[in-house]
Amino acid sequence: MLEKNVYFFSKEDTDGNKNLKEVLGGKGANLAEMCNIGLPIPPGFTVTTDVCKIYYDNNKSYPETIKKEVEKNLKKVEELLGKKLGDPNDPLLVSVRSGAAVSMPGMMDTVLNLGLNDKSVEGLAKVSGNEWFAFDSYRRFIQMYGDVVLGMKPENDGDEDPFEGIIEDVKKEKKIELDTELSIDDLKSLIVKFKDAVKKVTGKDFPISPMEQLWGGIDAVFNSWNTDRAIYYRRLNQIPDDIGTAVNVQTMVYGNMGETSGTGVAFTRDAATGENLFTGEYLINAQGEDVVAGTRTPQQITKEGSLRWAKLQDVSEEERVSNFPSLEEAMPKMYKDLFEMQRKLEVYYKDMQDLEFTIQDGKMWILQTRSGKRTCASMIKIALDMVKEGMIDEKTAVLRVEPNKLDELLHPDFDKKAIDEAIVLTKGLPASPGAATGQIVFNADVAEEWADDGKETILVRTETSPEDLKGMNVAKGILTAKGGMTSHAAVVARGMGKCCVSGAGSIRINYKAKTLTIGEDVFKEGDWLSLNGTTGEVYKGKTKTIEPELSGNFGQLMELADKYTRMNVRTNADTPHDSEVARKFGAQGIGLCRTEHMFFEGDRIIAMREMILAKDEAGRIEALEKLLPIQRADFEGIFKAMHDLPVTVRLLDPPLHEFVPHDEKGQKEMAKVMGISIEEIKDKIESLSEVNPMLGHRGCRLGNTYPEITVMQARAIIEAALNLKKKGIKAIPEIMIPLIGTAKEFKMQEEIVRDTINTVFEERGEKMDYLVGTMIEIPRAALTADEVAKDAEFFSFGTNDLTQMTYGYSRDDAGKFLPIYIEKGLLKNDPFQVLDQTGVGQLVKMATEKGRSARSNLKIGICGEHGGEPSSVEFCDGVGMNYVSCSPYRVPIARLAAAQANIKKK
Amino acid sequence: MLEKNVYFFSKEDTDGNKNLKEVLGGKGANLAEMCNIGLPIPPGFTVTTDVCKIYYDNNKSYPETIKKEVEKNLKKVEELLGKKLGDPNDPLLVSVRSGAAVSMPGMMDTVLNLGLNDKSVEGLAKVSGNEWFAFDSYRRFIQMYGDVVLGMKPENDGDEDPFEGIIEDVKKEKKIELDTELSIDDLKSLIVKFKDAVKKVTGKDFPISPMEQLWGGIDAVFNSWNTDRAIYYRRLNQIPDDIGTAVNVQTMVYGNMGETSGTGVAFTRDAATGENLFTGEYLINAQGEDVVAGTRTPQQITKEGSLRWAKLQDVSEEERVSNFPSLEEAMPKMYKDLFEMQRKLEVYYKDMQDLEFTIQDGKMWILQTRSGKRTCASMIKIALDMVKEGMIDEKTAVLRVEPNKLDELLHPDFDKKAIDEAIVLTKGLPASPGAATGQIVFNADVAEEWADDGKETILVRTETSPEDLKGMNVAKGILTAKGGMTSHAAVVARGMGKCCVSGAGSIRINYKAKTLTIGEDVFKEGDWLSLNGTTGEVYKGKTKTIEPELSGNFGQLMELADKYTRMNVRTNADTPHDSEVARKFGAQGIGLCRTEHMFFEGDRIIAMREMILAKDEAGRIEALEKLLPIQRADFEGIFKAMHDLPVTVRLLDPPLHEFVPHDEKGQKEMAKVMGISIEEIKDKIESLSEVNPMLGHRGCRLGNTYPEITVMQARAIIEAALNLKKKGIKAIPEIMIPLIGTAKEFKMQEEIVRDTINTVFEERGEKMDYLVGTMIEIPRAALTADEVAKDAEFFSFGTNDLTQMTYGYSRDDAGKFLPIYIEKGLLKNDPFQVLDQTGVGQLVKMATEKGRSARSNLKIGICGEHGGEPSSVEFCDGVGMNYVSCSPYRVPIARLAAAQANIKKK
Repeated sequence: MLEKNVYFFSKEDTDGNKNLKEVLGGKGANLAEMCNIGLPIPPGFTVTTDVCKIYYDNNKSYPETIKKEVEKNLKKVEELLGKKLGDPNDPLLVSVRSGAAVSMPGMMDTVLNLGLNDKSVEGLAKVSGNEWFAFDSYRRFIQMYGDVVLGMKPENDGDEDPFEGIIEDVKKEKKIELDTELSIDDLKSLIVKFKDAVKKVTGKDFPISPMEQLWGGIDAVFNSWNTDRAIYYRRLNQIPDDIGTAVNVQTMVYGNMGETSGTGVAFTRDAATGENLFTGEYLINAQGEDVVAGTRTPQQITKEGSLRWAKLQDVSEEERVSNFPSLEEAMPKMYKDLFEMQRKLEVYYKDMQDLEFTIQDGKMWILQTRSGKRTCASMIKIALDMVKEGMIDEKTAVLRVEPNKLDELLHPDFDKKAIDEAIVLTKGLPASPGAATGQIVFNADVAEEWADDGKETILVRTETSPEDLKGMNVAKGILTAKGGMTSHAAVVARGMGKCCVSGAGSIRINYKAKTLTIGEDVFKEGDWLSLNGTTGEVYKGKTKTIEPELSGNFGQLMELADKYTRMNVRTNADTPHDSEVARKFGAQGIGLCRTEHMFFEGDRIIAMREMILAKDEAGRIEALEKLLPIQRADFEGIFKAMHDLPVTVRLLDPPLHEFVPHDEKGQKEMAKVMGISIEEIKDKIESLSEVNPMLGHRGCRLGNTYPEITVMQARAIIEAALNLKKKGIKAIPEIMIPLIGTAKEFKMQEEIVRDTINTVFEERGEKMDYLVGTMIEIPRAALTADEVAKDAEFFSFGTNDLTQMTYGYSRDDAGKFLPIYIEKGLLKNDPFQVLDQTGVGQLVKMATEKGRSARSNLKIGICGEHGGEPSSVEFCDGVGMNYVSCSPYRVPIARLAAAQANIKKK
Repeated sequence: MLEKNVYFFSKEDTDGNKNLKEVLGGKGANLAEMCNIGLPIPPGFTVTTDVCKIYYDNNKSYPETIKKEVEKNLKKVEELLGKKLGDPNDPLLVSVRSGAAVSMPGMMDTVLNLGLNDKSVEGLAKVSGNEWFAFDSYRRFIQMYGDVVLGMKPENDGDEDPFEGIIEDVKKEKKIELDTELSIDDLKSLIVKFKDAVKKVTGKDFPISPMEQLWGGIDAVFNSWNTDRAIYYRRLNQIPDDIGTAVNVQTMVYGNMGETSGTGVAFTRDAATGENLFTGEYLINAQGEDVVAGTRTPQQITKEGSLRWAKLQDVSEEERVSNFPSLEEAMPKMYKDLFEMQRKLEVYYKDMQDLEFTIQDGKMWILQTRSGKRTCASMIKIALDMVKEGMIDEKTAVLRVEPNKLDELLHPDFDKKAIDEAIVLTKGLPASPGAATGQIVFNADVAEEWADDGKETILVRTETSPEDLKGMNVAKGILTAKGGMTSHAAVVARGMGKCCVSGAGSIRINYKAKTLTIGEDVFKEGDWLSLNGTTGEVYKGKTKTIEPELSGNFGQLMELADKYTRMNVRTNADTPHDSEVARKFGAQGIGLCRTEHMFFEGDRIIAMREMILAKDEAGRIEALEKLLPIQRADFEGIFKAMHDLPVTVRLLDPPLHEFVPHDEKGQKEMAKVMGISIEEIKDKIESLSEVNPMLGHRGCRLGNTYPEITVMQARAIIEAALNLKKKGIKAIPEIMIPLIGTAKEFKMQEEIVRDTINTVFEERGEKMDYLVGTMIEIPRAALTADEVAKDAEFFSFGTNDLTQMTYGYSRDDAGKFLPIYIEKGLLKNDPFQVLDQTGVGQLVKMATEKGRSARSNLKIGICGEHGGEPSSVEFCDGVGMNYVSCSPYRVPIARLAAAQANIKKK
């Protein structure tokens, strides 16, 4: 345990600063920093993330020393403000909020108005001069504390909150609609009913001791670190489980003290487009939760934003000015203060900020600032703009863009012509850009189920809540009826890079009937809709999409990345089309061209099957002669598409059983073609089946037992390359032997390849350069890489298989336990997605070092799926690989990740 | 290339000595050594094994320098003897023989009488004064040279040698039966016919140039290094392919120069029993090949041996003295010389020698000495006797016994009572001891086929040849009609530790009809016979066998081994019976007790299936409660059998799919038991099936996804141990978590185990010691062993799975390519039998070092099948393991191997 576990912050005296994120969490560190730079921050203190670990290690309790530290800091706040927590006359009230080192918005719990009880509420009423506000705050506090600390919040989405039920009953009885219409007596009676409900559900009285309340609040925040949804969020965003959250205890300020109060959220630039425009939303006479919850329609902060919004929402200027004025118009002084503060923050942090503010009775308070979540397009635009503005340098700009986010830009967008022809059903807010087409569902669980069945869905909700997270993640797009640009749906969707149209006010959802009504049209679950997240338009049915391009800002970023990179990026492609796509995305060669996929098309599978089912070598050679021209033509196509760039061709790899017909019809056909009985065909197929095909007769084991296959493939490759040479097209073939486990296996295959190629050279009277290397995908190959490298001219790490064998996990079967392993925290990531640097990486590093010890200029790359995963790319750069190779659509991601790895290293 | 490639040897001047086996081969080194110690050796020279490598590397030719060295050495022989190779007046004649560093008897080629041609044969006739002998030698030379050098030997076993055909024709024409009855003219005409045959088959004249003959002979020996049978023999005996053979060119001496000449083979002690008795066989007026080929009935060397032989063969004393006198009786002077020489050799080499001698016209020549092949029983007896005689020390005695040979003594022997009751059909020579019962076959290929089908066979042949090697290897026993104690069948069988009865003269074999006639009885292929290799008896039908015991010499050897060992030897046993057997063989604990085998017996499989097919945790727990008392009782039995010794219990390991019923009947039964539909059962079973079960949901992945299974097993283990404690029996349980790939996986299982055990301790109010450790069988566990060892108290290497994953070989499927890989030399051994020290061993070593770096007293063992394989045991000793564990019947082998490893290390 450290000596200091609680950090004080106030304008006058602050312990922390922005560099202490790991200790104070993002929120706590930034609160401290804002105090340091003189912004108006309500004073308070931060309980560190270490205490979170201590809390869990200590069976959910605290050592006495920590309790004392909290009390000491509380006293400091009390002395500073001259108020005491829960004082019956002039009570100090505090908020208790979470704040981890990495932002997890909405995932953890918060308690506001803490310190109120039957006595201090009277003091608050007296001091504020607003009895209604005081009792409404007390009512809210009991409700929030009951839900969050005492666990009265219903577990299931559909079940009603017990407190909301009581409010609804009172409103029904009083025949009123809005909470604000409740009288002071109504509020007082609600408070009694709320406390009864607490007693009934928990068996205990509502705690009146302010200190008991405070510790309850702190416990609740720590406990919320391990709720299912927080854990899920961490998995999704690859946030470690053991970093813990800090707790911020801060003096309450009130945005709900009347018409001179308010609260809001602002972005220093447009989070959706990246434009250098101050944007944000606010509500008058409201607490922070009201803005993000989407229950009231929020107003824009700037007049420009307000006008835009009114146009999108078809709100008349008259209505806008009277009901939805911008902060700029409604409170010009407050707007001016806020504008200056946001500039100060962005310039200070050198990044787009997402900030929360509260206006209490004409005074502006900042409650939080953080780096703003944004779409990928805006991430790129902001980074490039800031370079132009001289705020950051080029390397920083490259580091600013999360490689995985590029995925958003690599998905298809709507075809312009299709949009013109599309039927626009309605228009909502363009909350998160992109194009989505899918079948509508009304429930996050259904979205998950359908996604499991491979269906593409649009999740339609009145509004979303953190419980919908999983469903949002698998849906192609999100459509909500309520909520603004900073609503839960909007913020989360932007974070996910998921297309979202929010606040489409004209739609009506009937959850029971599972229908969506837009004007006259009624859509049922499963009907197709399309969302345009860039315009906010909702189209009827499916809408045609087009391929993305590397242009504009995206292209500029890629150029910048290449300027600072060391490694090459290649692609895994088996067809001329894929090769061309990848080349367009900047691939510098093919790192893995699988030859087996070529055998499945059209009639060629027949010849392949003849080869496999042949009874002897002569039969196989006969069938291989039919395959030779086909393979040669395939290679010509790929070599042509990749002219002047290296193409790594992997020789036949999968077990032969994968090629044979498993259906009666296919078997009959083969019997006829080969002129033998179907029983013979069946016997041969049966003899090919394996208990563990992954560990069976495949890879170079095929080439070493049936050398004639290797002979055919080597001939096809080199003849294709020579044919192109004649046409002036330069092919650079690199022949890759798969599944090597011993140096001898490689040598035998290499000799067959070189002998065959020499024969072709002699036949044609010409020569050309080529390489023969191997895939390192079997642990033993990595362990003996020095022996293998004596003959192999290059290594390519097949980390898919290497991961399978190093972990002993079959990718086909791991679904039975991998999700449970990740859920239980036994694994941080799916090792097939994120390279396991500790185990598999150890073999990769060892093989690289051993390989280069035997052949100093050994060319080394990776062609497993990890080649397009940023943290794995960084690892590959670290061990000194020459290139990574990934699927065509991940090439830009890998290029950016490679550049970042190189920049970080220096 | 080295400077010296040819080594001269003669009584006067010798280049080599016995320590140069790797260079000169065993035969060459011993010839040199015998010259050094003054024995009568015909002079000659040895072409080194390096030249064999050069020959193959050089496209089967020699550099000029080597040719010159051979010529120089030949000249030296010529000068020493005053004769010239092929001289028409007094020709020098030589033999050309193979000789690798490791003895491969009968596997390679030999050419005798080299240097003869139409002219020199006249010289030989003149000098020897024996024209018949000279022309017979010439005839033999053409035949042998034709077969061996010119490749005229028929490839298939059944096909007739072209030369033999010619001889048979002549004999038929002349109406004679024996070769010795041929007249000089007959021989001369045979020579003409032989040369015609050579011309006809090869298209070339028989070479008359002695130098051409010599190089042909040398080539032939080198070529015979890579015949199929030589390669097969090397695989069988794990002899590397790259050591090559030397070639010995030696002056001919003749045992076929009449009644004062002879040739024979002798052992300094009895090779079958180990008794300190000089034994051996010889033939008068014969060349060496005649003795081992088994075509003439050889005579005994000693009188004592001769009397014994006559008794066994029912030969009357009168007949024995006149037709089969011993050398001791027939040539007392020669016998005395030989007796003295054999003593000299044994004392000098300090080991039992197998020597070849030739008597040429009353002079004794030694042609070869080598360490004699022997049965395991004699190996042990000789080693122990030599310790008693003061010839060797105890450590040397321990090193003298090949651990794998102990297997012979660990096979069942005939029950004494069963022997008394057995019907003795006939009696042959007790050529190689042991008990064999099997179905008779008459052809080595059939023996192989039948063995593949799992049948036990007795191979019955008139006599055996090197071509029968594979069949002999798979047969349970060998019965021959011809051939003595030094015949091919006898020597090879003893080398293999295979039961063999040779020279059973009264049996008649009809290969065509596939029948064996013994007296009145006619046996067909597939009929059952039993062989007693210790007495030479042949019994009708099957004969009952009994378990072996560690008594007498065997027990003494084991005690000696334990005196010099460091590692413990445990056993892999799942039942009290196996535990008892292993304990009897000296097991010092159980290294692997697989719990899953226990679930298959009787009704318990039903409860196991209920557990697996249960639809939720509650259902599983209910079924596990039924299994608990069963498991507990099982453990009580095993702990009791292994009282006071540690028992490593592995928790459930195999995929659950292995336990469920795959037949309709079993599925119906389960549906009835569980009260659900058969469709539900089928669905569940289907959902359990896996593409690669080896890499699927098994091992600790079961315990981590269904913790209740681990809870039940931990409880059963500790309750069993506590129950025994009450009875005063000490159990030492070591609980082993299988298939760990990450430290967290271990930790989670360990916590479940410890929590469960603590609960039991609390319930019972008593405690006891136990360990929790893990199996290291996944490459990743080895790579991260330091992390794993933080919590694990012991490691046990599961080298079966570790080999599967390190090589990427499925044991179930590798049969498709492993044999081909071994045949092609891609693998030296089956890595599932002999631990791959380079690859898998690297992980074992790494894990041992990393594990001990985290926990210095980490107990480490091996429980894969390699734990009973001598070279692997030596490796385990080298890396510092605490114990090896193997199947009960391999425990003595492992004990001896462990002792040898420790002795060699020092």
